[in-house]
Amino acid sequence: MAKQEDQFKKVISHAKEYGYIFGSSEIYDGLSAVYDYGQNGAELKKNIREYWWKSMVNMHQNIVGLDAAIFMHPTTWKASGHVDAFSDPLIDNKDSKKRYRADVLVEDYAEKLNIKAEKEITKAAKRFGESFDRDQYETTNPRVMGYRQKQKDATTRLARLLEAEDLAGVKALIEELEIACPESGSKNWTDVRQFNLMFGTKLGASAETATDLYLRPETAQGIFVNFLNVQKTGRMKIPFGIAQTGKAFRNEIVARQFIFRMREFEQMEMQFFVRPGEEMKWYEYWKETRLKWHKSLGLGEENYRFHDHEKLAHYANAAADIEFNFPFGFKELEGIHSRTDFDLKAHEEHSGKKLQFFDPELNESYVPYVVETSIGLDRMFLAVFSKSLQEETLEDGTSRVVLKLPSILAPVKAAILPLVKKDGLPEIAQQIVDDLKFDFNVIYDEKDAIGRRYRRQDAAGTPFCITIDHDTIKDQTVTIRHRDSMKQERIAIKDIKGIIEQQVSFKNWIL
Amino acid sequence: MAKQEDQFKKVISHAKEYGYIFGSSEIYDGLSAVYDYGQNGAELKKNIREYWWKSMVNMHQNIVGLDAAIFMHPTTWKASGHVDAFSDPLIDNKDSKKRYRADVLVEDYAEKLNIKAEKEITKAAKRFGESFDRDQYETTNPRVMGYRQKQKDATTRLARLLEAEDLAGVKALIEELEIACPESGSKNWTDVRQFNLMFGTKLGASAETATDLYLRPETAQGIFVNFLNVQKTGRMKIPFGIAQTGKAFRNEIVARQFIFRMREFEQMEMQFFVRPGEEMKWYEYWKETRLKWHKSLGLGEENYRFHDHEKLAHYANAAADIEFNFPFGFKELEGIHSRTDFDLKAHEEHSGKKLQFFDPELNESYVPYVVETSIGLDRMFLAVFSKSLQEETLEDGTSRVVLKLPSILAPVKAAILPLVKKDGLPEIAQQIVDDLKFDFNVIYDEKDAIGRRYRRQDAAGTPFCITIDHDTIKDQTVTIRHRDSMKQERIAIKDIKGIIEQQVSFKNWIL
Repeated sequence: MAKQEDQFKKVISHAKEYGYIFGSSEIYDGLSAVYDYGQNGAELKKNIREYWWKSMVNMHQNIVGLDAAIFMHPTTWKASGHVDAFSDPLIDNKDSKKRYRADVLVEDYAEKLNIKAEKEITKAAKRFGESFDRDQYETTNPRVMGYRQKQKDATTRLARLLEAEDLAGVKALIEELEIACPESGSKNWTDVRQFNLMFGTKLGASAETATDLYLRPETAQGIFVNFLNVQKTGRMKIPFGIAQTGKAFRNEIVARQFIFRMREFEQMEMQFFVRPGEEMKWYEYWKETRLKWHKSLGLGEENYRFHDHEKLAHYANAAADIEFNFPFGFKELEGIHSRTDFDLKAHEEHSGKKLQFFDPELNESYVPYVVETSIGLDRMFLAVFSKSLQEETLEDGTSRVVLKLPSILAPVKAAILPLVKKDGLPEIAQQIVDDLKFDFNVIYDEKDAIGRRYRRQDAAGTPFCITIDHDTIKDQTVTIRHRDSMKQERIAIKDIKGIIEQQVSFKNWIL
Repeated sequence: MAKQEDQFKKVISHAKEYGYIFGSSEIYDGLSAVYDYGQNGAELKKNIREYWWKSMVNMHQNIVGLDAAIFMHPTTWKASGHVDAFSDPLIDNKDSKKRYRADVLVEDYAEKLNIKAEKEITKAAKRFGESFDRDQYETTNPRVMGYRQKQKDATTRLARLLEAEDLAGVKALIEELEIACPESGSKNWTDVRQFNLMFGTKLGASAETATDLYLRPETAQGIFVNFLNVQKTGRMKIPFGIAQTGKAFRNEIVARQFIFRMREFEQMEMQFFVRPGEEMKWYEYWKETRLKWHKSLGLGEENYRFHDHEKLAHYANAAADIEFNFPFGFKELEGIHSRTDFDLKAHEEHSGKKLQFFDPELNESYVPYVVETSIGLDRMFLAVFSKSLQEETLEDGTSRVVLKLPSILAPVKAAILPLVKKDGLPEIAQQIVDDLKFDFNVIYDEKDAIGRRYRRQDAAGTPFCITIDHDTIKDQTVTIRHRDSMKQERIAIKDIKGIIEQQVSFKNWIL
């Protein structure tokens, strides 16, 4: 656990040091749970978005794109259920005036019991030495068993109360467990009430005529309300998909874990419209297809797993997460949801417009079912970045920090480095930059010794370094150095483009 | 004028019919001044964004990207002047309860006088026939001269009052001109007051602890607050630029002209940091560079012109627009602004942090000056789309509607069309799709007669049609049809990729 936390801290500081991620408005001491992407981060994020778009839209003849606005008619969110049900249970401490998520208070209480149990076990392990049998101790020691039982009771009761939407019961549970405010230590709580997570704003100038708008909490609804527009003007036939990337906003009470859970974030969503009754086939298809896509990036197959939902959202009849092994453990990276016809039907009801497809093969009209793939672009960024950041011990005993980003996603594909700042080498290097820049994002760097420049590019995630030396003048060759293997090869200038192309071309990654 | 309006209506309906732009939330009867980009619009918008990004970031070794959040610390907008000065003068009619921009009421009044003058001239032209001398009539006819004088008086006085921030004077002017509410006909007006154009929202759950946030009204400030982060981590030396694309929001009272002025829009901005005293050199450089960029798209050089600002914003010491000939006349497409050190100095003052660059050549530190290039992505979309939409009369007397988008920006690069739905032609066509789809966005279409399919692709803006016929089976050749010339050529299947590549490669467009 300590090692994980340590690694996570390294990820955060490396992201800042190499221009990937800065805290938002840092000069004003930041804005909680909001981040800005720096010069390298902006490119990595753009490359992930483009990789997803090409994989989903260009690779599938029956998937097209969309770019709907963040502002939508407010009835959209009534229909989708967000106005009524997109909320967290909150509770205030009357003494500290601090507000908490009531469920998180109980979960933190349960986690503390778990920590107590673990401490007991660790103590015993020390006491007994090698003969210690953890499993046996856990299932027989009354103190450990007591902690575990209390932990389980608390979480089970919480789940039951939330399921029943019994907010008074949640408050009673908090009082019964004698949970105190972490800030004031007081147990003087208000009632629990639901707090909607949507950000609101007002459209229009006049207070009387202003429309209450929401910043969209998900991009999916922009696809649903445009379902018929796209189907008709694009002459789409079921099954077909509509894909979209864009910002969404959630007023999270507990926003933490760096860019994992932000108040402003970007989604990459695809809604796939299918015949009623065929949704489970497509649900399985997209689960497998999306998992394969993630694994193809080469970050380690063992870092992905499915988590099938037991408790389903109001719109779903099946749902699974693709979880990734983040620095803080396995967490949701992408969701695949069989959303049924819930959304389209709800929009039919609230708008009075038919949202049906006439199926020429069946010779009938129906409201399609929907299978959704929904991935957080920022989470994907964190997954790729954190797993790529490695510290290696080299053969000579020294160590290096290297950011082994999949080369197709790397912000800069190659750094062009003249060995020295004279003898015409910078001019040749500049010429190579000018030849390559139309096809790849490349940079020129002449500062510091060559070894130091290599290390800088390793840490920044650049897959290739091209070094121009005095032999280059004679024979038109350069040294190409590979980031991951650190191997160096002598190649002709005219072959540089082809070699890089080979490593970063979409075709070679997606297949 | 009528022809222009007619053309504009055609643009709007064509944009909808071919999946470029839908009104937002149409099934809920729309949301004023907000639009969604459809399957083709999403691709065109993406291609424009990418063309700009490559031109600005990849082509310039001293320009890097950034992707700052929409949410920023609220003090940002205090420092930038938006909290105090980003507002419109509004007035309410007490009878209709409708709210108007006071300056627009006066401008509309002046425009009506202009229309009256034009009507007089048109009448006289009819009366006099061929002998009519418009210039002479305009400068001698007392009625026309009267209208024109009143028009000029109104706009001159308005400009003076706005300059002096004399809101009471603006109200007095409206009353003196006897301007009536267009809805109620009443002249019963409230006072004029300033209304801030920023959208507000609240961050955090509790009413007491919530932070008032704004949706950014421009992307530029995200660059300024990150100036040192990027400069230091990217080891940038002045002069250098930071480029960014992203959404901005303005609560416009009068939002009209389709996607030209929207409440939610996307900017493509670059802030170029220079030595104090060198800003005018760079201002001229970027004016010329940006104009050249626009002209290189081939939409007609006569459709662009500079408009130098006489009245400068509080932060600028020079400013010019690149205006484009939109369907409603020449209007701002891009702004080039010499912003001085206003923004960085303001952030220094409000944050207490130094935002200076140590210039090794001068051996001194200074707050850089800034030259900005700022373009509306949606406006650029409208410019490209509206100018590309043409109706042509063909040699045989029939007409066709064709969307002559620059091929590098076209959503779909090629349509692959089997002549008939049998004899193995669809299979060959699919194989060609599968070969090309990694490099270009291509589509397959087998429905309707080939002539009709060509027309559909012409109207959708697809630069190439590839037709597979029975000869293809024999000799591995296809017909390639060029959208603009309608010329058809017989080429080998293996040459398709190279021919398209040649026409849509970035290198061939940008040079």
